[in-house]
Amino acid sequence: MKIVLLGSGNVATHLAQALVAKGEEMVQVFSQSLRNAISLTDLVGGEPIDDLTQVNNSADLYIIAVKDDAIAGIADQLKSVTGLVVHTSGTTDMTVISSKVEHAGVFYPLQTFSKAKPVFFDEIPLCIEATDEKQLKVLNTLASKLSNRVYQVDGNQRKILHLAAVFACNFPNHLYALANQLLQQHQLDFEIIRPLIKETADKVMTNLPESVQTGPAIREDETTLNKHFSMLSNVPELQNIYQTLSDSIKLKAK
Amino acid sequence: MKIVLLGSGNVATHLAQALVAKGEEMVQVFSQSLRNAISLTDLVGGEPIDDLTQVNNSADLYIIAVKDDAIAGIADQLKSVTGLVVHTSGTTDMTVISSKVEHAGVFYPLQTFSKAKPVFFDEIPLCIEATDEKQLKVLNTLASKLSNRVYQVDGNQRKILHLAAVFACNFPNHLYALANQLLQQHQLDFEIIRPLIKETADKVMTNLPESVQTGPAIREDETTLNKHFSMLSNVPELQNIYQTLSDSIKLKAK
Repeated sequence: MKIVLLGSGNVATHLAQALVAKGEEMVQVFSQSLRNAISLTDLVGGEPIDDLTQVNNSADLYIIAVKDDAIAGIADQLKSVTGLVVHTSGTTDMTVISSKVEHAGVFYPLQTFSKAKPVFFDEIPLCIEATDEKQLKVLNTLASKLSNRVYQVDGNQRKILHLAAVFACNFPNHLYALANQLLQQHQLDFEIIRPLIKETADKVMTNLPESVQTGPAIREDETTLNKHFSMLSNVPELQNIYQTLSDSIKLKAK
Repeated sequence: MKIVLLGSGNVATHLAQALVAKGEEMVQVFSQSLRNAISLTDLVGGEPIDDLTQVNNSADLYIIAVKDDAIAGIADQLKSVTGLVVHTSGTTDMTVISSKVEHAGVFYPLQTFSKAKPVFFDEIPLCIEATDEKQLKVLNTLASKLSNRVYQVDGNQRKILHLAAVFACNFPNHLYALANQLLQQHQLDFEIIRPLIKETADKVMTNLPESVQTGPAIREDETTLNKHFSMLSNVPELQNIYQTLSDSIKLKAK
């Protein structure tokens, strides 16, 4: 497929690399910053552009991988294309595009991308949606080349997935950071809790999290809960988080 | 070493199996429930007992792996032993034992144990402490047989580690459970977010969590934050957690 990529952030970069590795052709990469577009075309080929009026009209697929609030503006500039236009957002309705172009869809990879770490698409859930069956087939074929986990989900389910991902990814990562803050204050290295973090995630690969909850809150071990609470007395923010999540663990156990 | 194990819960079970696998001898297993003691001696050998007056006085090591508030009571019954007595608790002072027995120490494995999943001790941080250098050496030798990660930490550091573990393990697992609650309410399977959970943990194996934070809060993406907040309007508990953790992410970024 001839693909035009609109965007040059983490999702755009990882996705473009995965597509090119599977033999797809990147004909153009658009970014508001030509420098960023060039950095990416250096990796994946194609013409770097920073002006939407230069977009090639004869590509098969246009992937809009930009910040949510910039999607509509870009779709506005793609009204004359006949290829399929998709966005990669978890929270944006497909109608933001389908109201403007002939063939629209969504291609949402449910994963956390950082520049710092390569990702392997094989295991990434790809959530697809399209305005009609034919386009859905096109997306399904493309997604199945990249990953073993392709899901057809509607817009509401996609939004729930995105919200669940905040709970399952963004919040846990922040809690790792708070743990590290506590460790550093006491001359302890983050390395010491890495095996615990790994095991905690590994456990739920084959179990449901509800069935493997551990710690003082689930045991209703008030002595330890009180000790921890008072250890955090000089950090009210962490104390508040500790209380909120411990209460929630107790509530769920009931 | 001849070892008497006092306790039959998750930590006791996993630790006993690891010790026996490395050639140590379990001479007795004590549990208040003789049935539990028998279940464990069936796995690791030794005599099952449910009466502390029957404890063998000539073992080299006594491992108290019970609930925190039961440690002191068991140590009371070990006053006549000459071997080293350790507990496995993250939050309990060594003095709870050392005030009662001749040689005392702590042997705290920083890991989450469930009956559901075997663990490999090689990678488990073992935090040791002892009343004197000689006993510390004994513990260090034993711990090094089990794991490549042996740390000498004092009581205060151990308590911080235990608290950090709640943030890095118990709370993230609960957030996985809340994510699953959202998914189930919308006919989505937990399987779909497992790769995301795995990647989130994998990322911090080589990076610090602060440097790989993603999601709407770190981007200060108020549109998405507001959307998510209103999606949770019928679940005030999740809404409160969402707000608390998002605020904390924003605060840390400053």
